[in-house]
Amino acid sequence: MAKDLEVQEGGATAARDYVDPPPAPLLDMEEFGKWSLYRATDANAGGVDCGGVGILGIAWAFGGMIFVLVYCTAGVSGGHINPAVTFGLFLARKVSLVRTVLYIVAQCLGAICGCGLVKAFQSSYYTRYGGGANELADGYNKGTGLGAEIIGTFVLVYTVFSATDPKRSARDSHIPVLAPLPIGFAVFMVHVATIPITGTGINPARSFGAAVIYNQEKAWDDQIFWVGQMIGAAAAALYHQFVLRAAGIKSLGSFRSSA
Amino acid sequence: MAKDLEVQEGGATAARDYVDPPPAPLLDMEEFGKWSLYRATDANAGGVDCGGVGILGIAWAFGGMIFVLVYCTAGVSGGHINPAVTFGLFLARKVSLVRTVLYIVAQCLGAICGCGLVKAFQSSYYTRYGGGANELADGYNKGTGLGAEIIGTFVLVYTVFSATDPKRSARDSHIPVLAPLPIGFAVFMVHVATIPITGTGINPARSFGAAVIYNQEKAWDDQIFWVGQMIGAAAAALYHQFVLRAAGIKSLGSFRSSA
Amino acid sequence: MAKDLEVQEGGATAARDYVDPPPAPLLDMEEFGKWSLYRATDANAGGVDCGGVGILGIAWAFGGMIFVLVYCTAGVSGGHINPAVTFGLFLARKVSLVRTVLYIVAQCLGAICGCGLVKAFQSSYYTRYGGGANELADGYNKGTGLGAEIIGTFVLVYTVFSATDPKRSARDSHIPVLAPLPIGFAVFMVHVATIPITGTGINPARSFGAAVIYNQEKAWDDQIFWVGQMIGAAAAALYHQFVLRAAGIKSLGSFRSSA
Amino acid sequence: MAKDLEVQEGGATAARDYVDPPPAPLLDMEEFGKWSLYRATDANAGGVDCGGVGILGIAWAFGGMIFVLVYCTAGVSGGHINPAVTFGLFLARKVSLVRTVLYIVAQCLGAICGCGLVKAFQSSYYTRYGGGANELADGYNKGTGLGAEIIGTFVLVYTVFSATDPKRSARDSHIPVLAPLPIGFAVFMVHVATIPITGTGINPARSFGAAVIYNQEKAWDDQIFWVGQMIGAAAAALYHQFVLRAAGIKSLGSFRSSA
Repeated sequence: MAKDLEVQEGGATAARDYVDPPPAPLLDMEEFGKWSLYRATDANAGGVDCGGVGILGIAWAFGGMIFVLVYCTAGVSGGHINPAVTFGLFLARKVSLVRTVLYIVAQCLGAICGCGLVKAFQSSYYTRYGGGANELADGYNKGTGLGAEIIGTFVLVYTVFSATDPKRSARDSHIPVLAPLPIGFAVFMVHVATIPITGTGINPARSFGAAVIYNQEKAWDDQIFWVGQMIGAAAAALYHQFVLRAAGIKSLGSFRSSA
Repeated sequence: MAKDLEVQEGGATAARDYVDPPPAPLLDMEEFGKWSLYRATDANAGGVDCGGVGILGIAWAFGGMIFVLVYCTAGVSGGHINPAVTFGLFLARKVSLVRTVLYIVAQCLGAICGCGLVKAFQSSYYTRYGGGANELADGYNKGTGLGAEIIGTFVLVYTVFSATDPKRSARDSHIPVLAPLPIGFAVFMVHVATIPITGTGINPARSFGAAVIYNQEKAWDDQIFWVGQMIGAAAAALYHQFVLRAAGIKSLGSFRSSA
Repeated sequence: MAKDLEVQEGGATAARDYVDPPPAPLLDMEEFGKWSLYRATDANAGGVDCGGVGILGIAWAFGGMIFVLVYCTAGVSGGHINPAVTFGLFLARKVSLVRTVLYIVAQCLGAICGCGLVKAFQSSYYTRYGGGANELADGYNKGTGLGAEIIGTFVLVYTVFSATDPKRSARDSHIPVLAPLPIGFAVFMVHVATIPITGTGINPARSFGAAVIYNQEKAWDDQIFWVGQMIGAAAAALYHQFVLRAAGIKSLGSFRSSA
Repeated sequence: MAKDLEVQEGGATAARDYVDPPPAPLLDMEEFGKWSLYRATDANAGGVDCGGVGILGIAWAFGGMIFVLVYCTAGVSGGHINPAVTFGLFLARKVSLVRTVLYIVAQCLGAICGCGLVKAFQSSYYTRYGGGANELADGYNKGTGLGAEIIGTFVLVYTVFSATDPKRSARDSHIPVLAPLPIGFAVFMVHVATIPITGTGINPARSFGAAVIYNQEKAWDDQIFWVGQMIGAAAAALYHQFVLRAAGIKSLGSFRSSA
């Protein structure tokens, strides 16, 4: 046990890297700026034309950015750039309550700054694409939008849990750095699937920051998506802890005893 | 049993991770839902227009999703989300008969649930794109469709065998986690090549689940693709075991003796 | 010396994996079939329209396929699926003459089988897209085409040398499996750059196999590209051995002495 | 100190690979040629049409090329192919002044040669797309262009610092080779975001080389972008050294003491 703690502090094995990271500096500023921008090229412009990057381009931009940001911040704050992910990890008791609250505040502030930056720099795009705000597309009802956000966030948080699972880390302790790649791909996938419905939130800070700066009624109505995102994150956390762990506990035990 | 435990305890090297995994919980629900959806944007809509994501987008969606899912489930069930792959691994005696049957049942149930979810959430897209069912495109005969499924499944299962080969694991024991990446890319490639012919099955659960929910005569006729998928998987398993292993045995032997 | 041999046989360190692999079974059949097919969607069809996958899609298909194939065959034959690469490695004394000749024969036979398969399965596409043969686009002269093939093959072979460099392997001995990824990306890049000029050969077997099956005069004239491909490969081999190695020798030496 | 040196020479751990590499041979020739070419398909042609590769294709080409080049040159020169990156690493005292100056000269010469090559080989494309020079798009003022270059270069250099951070290397010493992937993705992201504004410089050598060969007044005016690129690089270096390192010092310390 004492040895465990020591290793954890030393960090040399990197196996428990994702547990209890130091507080995040405001890293996400530029991120959300970008998010809104990319996102913006689709939802409110009424369809994708060949001159833009299309749904696929937006999905790549989000997925790639998340890959890069999680890669960059994993060693600093544990890669917490999404309140839903932080909330899921909190439910699984991987982050403390204080840290969870501070992280979420920092994430939302970063999102607001980012969107403000886009509005200042690219005002014509910004207006044309509705400020990159998450809004329900025509032809869908609130329930469908909520469902899309629940499933999308579930996929993301499930991937995060899989990638940072201590059991996997114990087994593959040499490759923690690879975790950002499947996380980025999961973000990409979810965007391909749900951009046509909600513009893809799956990150409450992203939805919130865009709404604050855009500040239009419909965008504020959207904040119902937060609920879906938190439900999806909670479901993934519970599924991972109570269903998958049943199988996991045993091999982890056998690993511990052999250590 | 004792041996199992021993291997499991060794565990730190992860070299034998893919052999004999615990049973899969019903993980694939959301997956097949997505599959059908993406797929749906092409086959029955009579051609890809610029407003959608196109063949390339569908191929990326499938390839990326398989990458994420195999990555996430590799440590739980060994990444079994495709009956053809499970069947190929069974032929090579890497999975027991009972497990093979249970896995295939779980895979098919997951696919049905996923397609049902899409039908419930996105009914307009669902109808427009023919329920994402695998159907032979106009201008091709059954033989060509069957051939496309055989070759496509062969490529996939061959990649799976290469990526999870114990010989490779022995050599690269530090990197088992990378296996999902080439598998995802193989899925991407096969979709680029065969979407215009059969809508790309290469996964009997995916073909079956879509047919069950869509439940139209042509989609059911399609189930002949199962035959092709199983033939392709068997061919890859035999090729790997009897052709490639001839070369492999020797170096594995020399590794064993030097260990 | 004795120690070197031992390590090689043990294979556990994987550091010298790429040297002297066993002969390649005819693995490339399906590959070249695909190649020609993808390639075919562009060159002779007079421009890319939105219904196809475009230059980007073709480039992804080639790059992804090479990634998968090199990944799969690296442990069997060392990933030799391109006569220009084999020739470059032969010049650097990494493959014996006999093996080089046998490999090139197998590569060309595989390419011919693959193209034959496409012609049989997809005859309408095959005819429409000129059999996937490498031909000089209108508006370019032979010199430019030759230059494009030289530079393209140089980039590819240079990447192969970088990725399989024993010095890198010594340093990163844990990650040989990553080598296919930059090689695949290099293939992707070169296709983006040279598809509009020559349809991108950079692989004599790919150019040759397509020409044999298509068997039209212009495609045969194309075989001049072989010369460019071999020049590019030779240049990369010489550059790596005589320019980069000057710097490399020293650190390798210091590694050896510290081992 | 003596211990540090020892490790560095041994190189087997690869942990400090990126510090103090041998001088770069002129590796970047073909690179910048390609850059200009890809870039060229967008900026001056007045919008992207479906027949080309579009913004997404250009972004992939740049990102992929940087991935391959950084991968290939990391072991030789430390992957220095961008004066802004070299300048940022110089500010953080990771490269000496002499080396910085020599690298930047080599980078600019490489860029000039590359652009010259494109002009010679592809003169019609070259003229049509304005020589691939970085120019401010219509509708944007200098300040916005400068801001875009500052933020874009910040993202790139921040990613480089994260990927080559000794603290990360100490933790993940087995995976230095993965660093090129997030760097390539960062380049991809920045291109998606800023191609419509400045054509995306974020590399002074790329901006300079294109301007030298194209040699038109507007392209020379562009060289103001250098200022933004250097500011962005400096900001990332300072942010990493003074903000992130505050958190980093402690765990590094604990690692040292536990080693």
